[in-house]
Amino acid sequence: MNPQSSPLLTDLYQFTMLQAYFDEGMNETAVFEFFVRDLPQRNFLMAAGLEQVLQFLENLHFTPEELNWLADCGRFNTDFIDFLKTLRFTGEVHAMPEGTLFFPHQPILRITAPITQAQLVESRIINLLHFQTLIASKAARSVLVAPGKLLVDFGLRRAHGAEAGLLAARAGYLAGYSGTATVLAGVQFGIPLYGTMAHSYIQAHADETAAFERFAHSQPTNTVLLIDTYDTETAAEKVVKLAPRLQPIRIKAVRLDSGNLSEHAHNVRRILDRGGLSEVGIFCSGNLDEHEIARLLAQGAPIDGFGVGTRLDTSADAPYLDCAYKLVEYAGQPRRKRSEGKATWPGRKQVYRINAADGSLDHDILTLENDVQAGAPLIQPFMLSGKRLAAPEPLEESRRRAAAELARLPERLKQLETSPQPYSVEIAPALRQLAEAVDRIAH
Amino acid sequence: MNPQSSPLLTDLYQFTMLQAYFDEGMNETAVFEFFVRDLPQRNFLMAAGLEQVLQFLENLHFTPEELNWLADCGRFNTDFIDFLKTLRFTGEVHAMPEGTLFFPHQPILRITAPITQAQLVESRIINLLHFQTLIASKAARSVLVAPGKLLVDFGLRRAHGAEAGLLAARAGYLAGYSGTATVLAGVQFGIPLYGTMAHSYIQAHADETAAFERFAHSQPTNTVLLIDTYDTETAAEKVVKLAPRLQPIRIKAVRLDSGNLSEHAHNVRRILDRGGLSEVGIFCSGNLDEHEIARLLAQGAPIDGFGVGTRLDTSADAPYLDCAYKLVEYAGQPRRKRSEGKATWPGRKQVYRINAADGSLDHDILTLENDVQAGAPLIQPFMLSGKRLAAPEPLEESRRRAAAELARLPERLKQLETSPQPYSVEIAPALRQLAEAVDRIAH
Repeated sequence: MNPQSSPLLTDLYQFTMLQAYFDEGMNETAVFEFFVRDLPQRNFLMAAGLEQVLQFLENLHFTPEELNWLADCGRFNTDFIDFLKTLRFTGEVHAMPEGTLFFPHQPILRITAPITQAQLVESRIINLLHFQTLIASKAARSVLVAPGKLLVDFGLRRAHGAEAGLLAARAGYLAGYSGTATVLAGVQFGIPLYGTMAHSYIQAHADETAAFERFAHSQPTNTVLLIDTYDTETAAEKVVKLAPRLQPIRIKAVRLDSGNLSEHAHNVRRILDRGGLSEVGIFCSGNLDEHEIARLLAQGAPIDGFGVGTRLDTSADAPYLDCAYKLVEYAGQPRRKRSEGKATWPGRKQVYRINAADGSLDHDILTLENDVQAGAPLIQPFMLSGKRLAAPEPLEESRRRAAAELARLPERLKQLETSPQPYSVEIAPALRQLAEAVDRIAH
Repeated sequence: MNPQSSPLLTDLYQFTMLQAYFDEGMNETAVFEFFVRDLPQRNFLMAAGLEQVLQFLENLHFTPEELNWLADCGRFNTDFIDFLKTLRFTGEVHAMPEGTLFFPHQPILRITAPITQAQLVESRIINLLHFQTLIASKAARSVLVAPGKLLVDFGLRRAHGAEAGLLAARAGYLAGYSGTATVLAGVQFGIPLYGTMAHSYIQAHADETAAFERFAHSQPTNTVLLIDTYDTETAAEKVVKLAPRLQPIRIKAVRLDSGNLSEHAHNVRRILDRGGLSEVGIFCSGNLDEHEIARLLAQGAPIDGFGVGTRLDTSADAPYLDCAYKLVEYAGQPRRKRSEGKATWPGRKQVYRINAADGSLDHDILTLENDVQAGAPLIQPFMLSGKRLAAPEPLEESRRRAAAELARLPERLKQLETSPQPYSVEIAPALRQLAEAVDRIAH
């Protein structure tokens, strides 16, 4: 069973509920929406992961092996297993396109389908949308603080498993990163790849200069030398001495990975410039995030690019979003959960974005789908009757949208610090009235 | 390409280094060790993920599709691609068995192999060991604070991707959780599954009692009712009224997922007991972690079990470990990285564990492999010449080891708070002497 596509990658309660719906003959149209309840130390979020959700939905089916497991586990009856045999996703998907910025309580995805289908896919839809949105939203912050700098995802090794490594590379690139070190992400998503050498390469050689020299001859167009294995400044001097001997191979950059990066970058820049290597770049890595990058750049550290790993791929300062996939309508009736602290807005919703005179984001209106407002509606149809309405959007196009969206952010929301004046999202009267009406119904 | 087994799920620099080693004719035996530099708000760590590493290594090979991609990407030469065609893992694996507790700077895995092999596998080995060790170490903390309680992993939806959801379920079970909600983790690892209904099930019915009743008839042996969709105490009263009508079906438990769980649990317990339902359990979920569980139990909340989701599967308070996979020997010569703040101990190492008189852990000795000490050596051989020395260890056996290890922890290290007296790990004189000798070599 392939974990990325198997419908068994879900919570057991989806199947116990499906068995109950099946027994009850309940399979009317349900509408679920995915949204985030609040912002964790962020001024905005960036929608990501829709493409993987669409792939999952269009391939949704049970293999004979999966059906056998369900039949043999002793929890479900034969008629229900027969029903699952032919289950496919035949519903609708409405969503904000990837790269769109969004705010609390705004749905970024709506599923409209028979309740068995819409319920079954809950766990994996959240799993896919949550993670890429989490990482894109985090990555966008370093993109904002380091304009013009090379930003590379280095996070695979401490990402939470294989898929996290791959999808973090994708979400980072979507948000504006230059590329990734993760080869398979290059293969699968066409993301530019970056990478040169580890400390072990230097250590495996008896002599540091010999390691630099041999690497340059092996990778003449990709000569980035890691210079902090023993002593950073000493290694920079070795690079200066080596450079003439390497001609016509030109050293592209040096990489620093430890210590006081600002201080070392200043020293190394001076050593390289004095040695006639002013065209050699300085690339830094090691426990970086957007705060550290901003700090280094504010200090005027002469750094040309950053490798950002663990703290990006785990979204270390906010490793999850308080998101949900909630039933908002069943069989034509709006629904609302009223659990303490977790109440949701009922009905099919739309978000209208109102721009300021200079084209920047001014405020949004959250309302019902059929309550048309001024401004651009952000939620668009992507799938009807289980079929895509268009070919998959190229990642480069989503990435351009993300860049355009970030450019339109008001200055206060581009800052790393949480703005005391959050983005304004008005709840339209139509939506408030529906919520009140739903609350008057006894259960 | 299967992300879980593809050798392209790695950092690009592994391939640029391999090409350089190939060009230089360097392929002597390298020894790498995986260890964690320090403890993040933890008194101990629990080793996990070895089984997945062994699977990865014994299946290591390049498919024609992967070789074609590497050949076509323009970075590598034909002879090198030919060399990769027949590359397999032919080396040795020494490790601490899964479920073993360990401490900073203690290797939990050692790879001994030709440097091309040992280097190539770095990224995925870290990716696998880091994540499961992170989650097992987090899960063990709720196991310690909630003895005798049912603990279920609910984290798939906000785990970082598909593999994270699966492996978090495995690591949690290894550390002592009772089971998981993730169906595919039950399929792949034989972990007990738990799950009943979501709020959407209640909401899809016009009437809450009708939802309870129908679910009970559909799942007569698994009747756990979610009672916080509208008003928790009102729903508990409905459960009491419904119970006689359901006979002979017996309600197993109710679940609370929002609000003040301690207060609601007390109220609900009173309502159920007064209604003759003292055998109906109370199961809680919703933003839980070990601190919240400890707080609820300290308040005497009458809760029988906990569903722990996001904060477990993302290890939210410490979403990564400062771990590394470092070269400690090449071609028979010990190696050491000296980068500032990141220096490593050279040579092949062993950890000896010394017990106190009562059988609890007293202290460890970190030394060289050949420097035999009193106490039990924790690092054992698992693979020689690329072949496993024994069949995969059943997960239940690793889980028993984990339980035995936790039972042997000194009381101060069982607490959630970081102990002012951390576990003592002595560095043996033989290891210190080797580090000094290595430092005298110029590079």
